[in-house]
Amino acid sequence: MKEKDFIENKKQAMEKLNKAKKQDKVDEDIIPILDIINSFDEYYTSSSCYGRIVLLELPIIGDKKNAKFLGKWHRKITKKDFSDSFKKSSKGQIWFLAQAPIIHLFSKDLNSGDKIVKKAVSCGFKNSGFRSIKKNIVVELTSTERLDCPIGFDGRFYVDDRYISLLLDSANEVINRSSKKLKKLKEELKNI
Amino acid sequence: MKEKDFIENKKQAMEKLNKAKKQDKVDEDIIPILDIINSFDEYYTSSSCYGRIVLLELPIIGDKKNAKFLGKWHRKITKKDFSDSFKKSSKGQIWFLAQAPIIHLFSKDLNSGDKIVKKAVSCGFKNSGFRSIKKNIVVELTSTERLDCPIGFDGRFYVDDRYISLLLDSANEVINRSSKKLKKLKEELKNI
Repeated sequence: MKEKDFIENKKQAMEKLNKAKKQDKVDEDIIPILDIINSFDEYYTSSSCYGRIVLLELPIIGDKKNAKFLGKWHRKITKKDFSDSFKKSSKGQIWFLAQAPIIHLFSKDLNSGDKIVKKAVSCGFKNSGFRSIKKNIVVELTSTERLDCPIGFDGRFYVDDRYISLLLDSANEVINRSSKKLKKLKEELKNI
Repeated sequence: MKEKDFIENKKQAMEKLNKAKKQDKVDEDIIPILDIINSFDEYYTSSSCYGRIVLLELPIIGDKKNAKFLGKWHRKITKKDFSDSFKKSSKGQIWFLAQAPIIHLFSKDLNSGDKIVKKAVSCGFKNSGFRSIKKNIVVELTSTERLDCPIGFDGRFYVDDRYISLLLDSANEVINRSSKKLKKLKEELKNI
């Protein structure tokens, strides 16, 4: 890609990001990291997630097209958060998920991409790498912690209270670890 | 990397793979795909997994260093497989996992790497990409289906029989879908 095109695409992406920020469509706690990445001429961010806990209703594994969010949190959650959301379930498999942070970004060239991937891996984002290396160089920074559990069907829990506590502890631990890694990445990115 | 080095590294990797095959250390059902990939001058495989179901004991989330395998299967499993393995648990969190196939391979150049990543994505291996693009070009072909559930602690189940059936169905569905995608990839790789 020509440098002129990269600059133009970055400009458009930044306008989109600023609009999304104003509409509260960007996870608040990840904004400082996006800002650091976007402060370099070599990169611009596209989509991102701070890490999240999700309660999802879906017909079959992987059929995310027909999935319905019962609850979505970019923070640690309580048993009340969980049970209030569960009440909205009605039909299909119910899944409880916790997902590590994910940052997608475009890189001007392969060398710059390599530099940020290595930096992220060194901060614990061990699943980082390149999604695309041809016309656009797309980098994904992400980690391995996660929770993906089916927990019920057609509006009914298949699990008891003690188990829900174990699930919530595990999900909150994913958020805890994600938050620590993001802090480290934020510091490290300053010296990239 | 010089072509001479790539050829030499491939030779060594193939010797290692053949030795591992003889010792039954390679998942049997993935061998035909590895053989197709390795038949091209542009690629050679390093590590791979057909997809698996795992029962794991570990102290804290992500602490895989201290994890102990209670059970590991590269096929669909029964309730008896599950409960026989669970009996071996004694200390720490117990997790039940199902993981999609994963194939790591080295590519001679970025163009060849790009070609096989795109092919894999088109067969449903949507998490495929480049792990490294500098000295060695390392490609990872993998998919999104998975199950990661904590299910007990210190040798005790936190879940009941009905829930275990739901978990097993979900895990077996991961294996089912993985197997279909691998079949498709095997066919498609012939025309890469």
